[in-house]
Amino acid sequence: MEEFSKLAEEASYQEDEERDPESNNLHQPLIKRNLTLSGNQLAIVGTKVSHIESLDYEINENDLFKQDWRSRSKVEVLQYVFSKWLLAFLVGLLTGLIATVINLAIENISGYKLLAVVKYIEQERYLMGFVYMAGANFLLTLVAAVLCVCFAPTAAGPGIPEIKAYLNGVDTPDMFGATTLIVKIIGSIGAVSAGLDLGKEGPLVHIGSCIASLLGQGGTDNYRIKWRWLRYFNNDRDRRDLITCGSSSGVCAAFRAPVGGVLFALEEVATWWRSALLWRNFFSTAVVVVVLRAFMEYCKSGNCGLFGKGGLIMFDVSGVSVRYHVVDIIPVAVIGVIGGVLGSLYNDLLHRVLKVYNVINKKGKLHKLLLSLSVSIFTSVCLYGLPFLAKCRPCDPSLLDSSCPTNGKGGNFKQFNCPEGYYNDLATLLLTTNDDAVRNIFSINTSTEFNVFSLVIFFVLYCILGLITFGIAVPSGLFLPIILMGSAYGRLLGIVMGPYTNIDQGLYAVLGAASLMAGSMRMTVSLCVIFLELTNNLLLLPITMLVLLIAKTVGDCFNPSIYEIILELKGLPFLEANPEPWMRNITVGELADVKPSVVTLSGIEKVGRIVEVLKNTTHNGFPVVDSVNGATELHGLILRAHLILVLKKKWFLRERRRTEEWEVREKFTSIDLAERGGNIDEVTVTKDEMGMYVDLHPLTNTTPYTVVESMSVAKAMVLFRQVGLRHMLVLHKHQAAGVSPVVGILTRQDLRAHNILSAFPHLEETRGPKKGN
Amino acid sequence: MEEFSKLAEEASYQEDEERDPESNNLHQPLIKRNLTLSGNQLAIVGTKVSHIESLDYEINENDLFKQDWRSRSKVEVLQYVFSKWLLAFLVGLLTGLIATVINLAIENISGYKLLAVVKYIEQERYLMGFVYMAGANFLLTLVAAVLCVCFAPTAAGPGIPEIKAYLNGVDTPDMFGATTLIVKIIGSIGAVSAGLDLGKEGPLVHIGSCIASLLGQGGTDNYRIKWRWLRYFNNDRDRRDLITCGSSSGVCAAFRAPVGGVLFALEEVATWWRSALLWRNFFSTAVVVVVLRAFMEYCKSGNCGLFGKGGLIMFDVSGVSVRYHVVDIIPVAVIGVIGGVLGSLYNDLLHRVLKVYNVINKKGKLHKLLLSLSVSIFTSVCLYGLPFLAKCRPCDPSLLDSSCPTNGKGGNFKQFNCPEGYYNDLATLLLTTNDDAVRNIFSINTSTEFNVFSLVIFFVLYCILGLITFGIAVPSGLFLPIILMGSAYGRLLGIVMGPYTNIDQGLYAVLGAASLMAGSMRMTVSLCVIFLELTNNLLLLPITMLVLLIAKTVGDCFNPSIYEIILELKGLPFLEANPEPWMRNITVGELADVKPSVVTLSGIEKVGRIVEVLKNTTHNGFPVVDSVNGATELHGLILRAHLILVLKKKWFLRERRRTEEWEVREKFTSIDLAERGGNIDEVTVTKDEMGMYVDLHPLTNTTPYTVVESMSVAKAMVLFRQVGLRHMLVLHKHQAAGVSPVVGILTRQDLRAHNILSAFPHLEETRGPKKGN
Repeated sequence: MEEFSKLAEEASYQEDEERDPESNNLHQPLIKRNLTLSGNQLAIVGTKVSHIESLDYEINENDLFKQDWRSRSKVEVLQYVFSKWLLAFLVGLLTGLIATVINLAIENISGYKLLAVVKYIEQERYLMGFVYMAGANFLLTLVAAVLCVCFAPTAAGPGIPEIKAYLNGVDTPDMFGATTLIVKIIGSIGAVSAGLDLGKEGPLVHIGSCIASLLGQGGTDNYRIKWRWLRYFNNDRDRRDLITCGSSSGVCAAFRAPVGGVLFALEEVATWWRSALLWRNFFSTAVVVVVLRAFMEYCKSGNCGLFGKGGLIMFDVSGVSVRYHVVDIIPVAVIGVIGGVLGSLYNDLLHRVLKVYNVINKKGKLHKLLLSLSVSIFTSVCLYGLPFLAKCRPCDPSLLDSSCPTNGKGGNFKQFNCPEGYYNDLATLLLTTNDDAVRNIFSINTSTEFNVFSLVIFFVLYCILGLITFGIAVPSGLFLPIILMGSAYGRLLGIVMGPYTNIDQGLYAVLGAASLMAGSMRMTVSLCVIFLELTNNLLLLPITMLVLLIAKTVGDCFNPSIYEIILELKGLPFLEANPEPWMRNITVGELADVKPSVVTLSGIEKVGRIVEVLKNTTHNGFPVVDSVNGATELHGLILRAHLILVLKKKWFLRERRRTEEWEVREKFTSIDLAERGGNIDEVTVTKDEMGMYVDLHPLTNTTPYTVVESMSVAKAMVLFRQVGLRHMLVLHKHQAAGVSPVVGILTRQDLRAHNILSAFPHLEETRGPKKGN
Repeated sequence: MEEFSKLAEEASYQEDEERDPESNNLHQPLIKRNLTLSGNQLAIVGTKVSHIESLDYEINENDLFKQDWRSRSKVEVLQYVFSKWLLAFLVGLLTGLIATVINLAIENISGYKLLAVVKYIEQERYLMGFVYMAGANFLLTLVAAVLCVCFAPTAAGPGIPEIKAYLNGVDTPDMFGATTLIVKIIGSIGAVSAGLDLGKEGPLVHIGSCIASLLGQGGTDNYRIKWRWLRYFNNDRDRRDLITCGSSSGVCAAFRAPVGGVLFALEEVATWWRSALLWRNFFSTAVVVVVLRAFMEYCKSGNCGLFGKGGLIMFDVSGVSVRYHVVDIIPVAVIGVIGGVLGSLYNDLLHRVLKVYNVINKKGKLHKLLLSLSVSIFTSVCLYGLPFLAKCRPCDPSLLDSSCPTNGKGGNFKQFNCPEGYYNDLATLLLTTNDDAVRNIFSINTSTEFNVFSLVIFFVLYCILGLITFGIAVPSGLFLPIILMGSAYGRLLGIVMGPYTNIDQGLYAVLGAASLMAGSMRMTVSLCVIFLELTNNLLLLPITMLVLLIAKTVGDCFNPSIYEIILELKGLPFLEANPEPWMRNITVGELADVKPSVVTLSGIEKVGRIVEVLKNTTHNGFPVVDSVNGATELHGLILRAHLILVLKKKWFLRERRRTEEWEVREKFTSIDLAERGGNIDEVTVTKDEMGMYVDLHPLTNTTPYTVVESMSVAKAMVLFRQVGLRHMLVLHKHQAAGVSPVVGILTRQDLRAHNILSAFPHLEETRGPKKGN
């Protein structure tokens, strides 16, 4: 949520020069949106643009890179491979450790809180109990929200959409910093302990990615370890791989599902995937599992306070013999259909709520805080108050002695306000941690435990909470709220269907949760494996698959997945896998024509012109064109960052000449070139220097990917996304002397469906249902 | 094996015209290997070239396609989507059913065979028993081998490498035909029932792919269903997707591992992968599992003869409580290291054996048959004779009454030649089906059952059989032989380590099998999930992961995976995922220069020239270049198949003019254009017609992917593979009037490391260890 207002805020105090062609806001028309040399510089001041840069996943093959690469010895290559694996190991290790700490903290904080509340209730001091609980929740939420609002606005929310965008090539600012990491950890502990309807699963994915990113660059921006080996990782490609590792480790840590984690990264998060990546991700998640397992071994001996066996959701139903017949396919299909409908409905409603929240959050930090705290108070009221509505139910005589009723932190039969020998089924579900609530509702062979009335209240409550909680300014995951909602309706359905099927009510709850997840998040294989690893029962696999497939299919009929909706809301220029069908009807040449004419540089360029071009345009890449015997020749593409570097280092020549190899190597290292950013305003060039020359050849990427102007946008987009480009050069298809070979440059923004449609409204007519799937 | 000689045979009776630039044999130098218009046609007669074509995964965006696409209504798009899913369903259904039939047949044939043998042994008619067994095995092998040798040589072997190559863009001829399918089914039943050391797993993958391919094209080449909906699938892209579905269904059917099947396709088989494909594959495997489950339900009631509970390997160890401590990591690591070493050793030895077999098989059909039959006899001798070496062991008194000793088909304690109350442990492993042998050796809580001596004999025997059996002319899978070898050494290691660990010997056997698989096949995630689904015990996951990772890492130090070795042996031009590092030092321009100069056509071309070009070159694509006001302009690329179609349909013009849209549509449909092949010699053009013109514009793919000549080969290869190209046009980087814009065309063969190195030997020096992983 934080993000929305942030983008707008930031835009206003951005300097003109920092704006770039990729940083177009979602709803801005494509045409004439960039400054050209001839344009009026004032025209765009105040235009709303966010500062989102694209990443350079393409290898920048300039002379320096090639030399550097050629001089790399075998030992250095081995160092590189070894450090890749070492980093994968560290990502797994640290993610596992941090997940452990988070789990320990949450279970202990919320455990002691609940114990105190139970004590007040035992003494029938109900009001005091409420005040205590609401107060504790309020304080915990306050800590989480203040941290998020003041120090790291990017830490709010799940973070998964931004990671998805990063791996697609969009660099959301401040997403993977050290502050974000710390705020996310503490904020997540606070928010989950506060009993809010949110999970630690999404935040763990973000935490894993932050760790990966920080490790890859050797520390925070201010305190970096200058380890020589790490310099190989100073590029966007290797960071992308590491962050993929981080996200799968995060999922693995959240659900103790190593295979599920890898598949989640593959199916939902990553845009590019290679076999080698599969393997390295798998290694990271294996490390996470080993860490978690060691930690749980250790806690079994009672060293972890109230942690006990809880904390890591694990609904081990491996002991249950699952029996079902062909007839059972019907209720399973019903669950799937309902899950799909409810899931897409949830997506739609959440979308609306987020829009409203967006307006509130934009009003300032105080509004954000107030919103978060109101939700906290509302949650406390409901969790504490609603159980009074439920009737006390007598304990099953066989259980009477030990496990019913209970007054501790966990337990399946909470006594709450009931007399001895009775329990309150709604309190069992509400007055507990979210993880325990899921465990209780998933519990098997307890077909008479929950009353329909209690389940309905639980379901409705969590539908409301699920909608209003997600958008507040604290770290929040979507998995758990959806699991809670889904399990409630699944169990309800189980009660309704009870007489007709063999499937246990607990399994109905599991299937309900799975169906709602598939209906909202639209994942299949990864969800299936996560549920398999959670339930530890392979016999459930076929029906889980069926439920997931049906729910996803039904959901896809109505709207896109929740992550896509959030991406759209945040205005992140995510590039879809499949081009729209109407993109075949337009060529890249037509697209390049409506953009302002491209600014090219000569191979040996005057310093004055470089400064002028950098000051007056916002492009991040410039074609370098040579003139040889009257014919023009494309030499390559040079990045803005490298031009600024040349100006900063004052690598100027008195005469117009080509430089030698040693001259470049004397001045620049590949580490210099890997640094991003730098602002043209920081550079001072004297008037004398303005008349000097720069040889751009050695710094130019001589092998940019190009397309001919007659290429259809659909195919160009496939190239753009498959190869992971930032700039795509469009070349003339006809050969004529004296004409620049470059028609234009296309970037991510130019290839987005929305932007193309706003420039070519007539394409809308040919819009049809999307092929591809 | 079949394949090697076949390629050579075929080449000799290929007409010159059928040869094409892609069809270069592995060890042929790149330079001047193609005919040019100016070249001597006789020069290449007799050159060894195999007829392997590349596939057109790129969308051929010519005018006709665009019109066809534009006229596609919403209903048709829905039809397309629906039939995609329907086909995925049918692939799953049919694969499941055929797997069922194969399992039933194998279990019954080999079951009755074994029962008869046991009867002879009971009567102490040992020689008669041997004659019966060897005879039956001989006959069964004969059936399988004759079918393979005479009718479908492509059905021999596992088929997985060819599928891998197909999905990479290489069309091995006769790979997915109806004859191949039938021979593969019957041959697989015969070979497995004959007790040969091979599995039905690999063949099932091939069978699944065959089914997918046949369904996609609506039947066999001769008898096709002309269902209108199927015409949408008449392209290489959709067939690729379907065959991916087929291969994952096959793995699923082999191991009853739906998730493992999908991951196998993803990790090992497929080159291109999309999220949508993941989902569709998952659907297919879900269908397979449901079919298998229904069939097993049905068989439980005894309707399936000797099938019983067997047939589908499933080592359900979910009941075992797996306990291990940190100390147990050491033996697990040892298993991994040994697995890696043995696996790569196996790869190396198998490579040598296959080379020898290649020489034998080339000598003719009879030699192939004799080789297969000798292996069969050798196998029979060993399986029957070796158990006599083992000592009889007394049954455990607690088991005496029922399960020890047994004389039936299955059972863990075979009596064989032993007195009552004793069993022969080697006979338990050898005189049984391969599936039962695996089940026996995996069996848990039976630490005293197998003697070290017996296990050593078993291990050595299966090492020998595993090496000599794979290359014979019958359908054979590699999974089972490797599992047998691996489980033997795993169990041996378990006995050695016994006093020091808590891990059961059965689990050692499982881990041994996993490690050898990883050491030889180099898969990780998919193997892990397959083993997870086989053993149905999630607690095994962390140690399985560890074993797989270690074994793969160790194996990778020595040689490539077994499938890559086979691909290389078969000379299939597989394009690797990562370019070699030295490919950065050469540009596509240099590469295009050593090829004969490219043949271009004009947009409106004389019929005579088209015929001449087609007759005198072997290219499959020609750039179409227009001349506009003195400047040349690239219009696109036209395929040989489409040129032949024009000649066949005699779509000629009397004058040099552009045609109208309706003229093309009158003559051609998109179905015509989708057909491949056609031979220029089948076309007769009169002398009068030779002087007429053809307007090539509407049939030209106007949007071919192009690269500028300065592009490095490394980057061009990334483009080629990521986008799935067949032809890549190389353009001039400088602009000059009157020069053809096209420098050359690169194909798959031109980008293969071996071919580049033979043309540019100096690059070899810069060869270093491969980056990328």
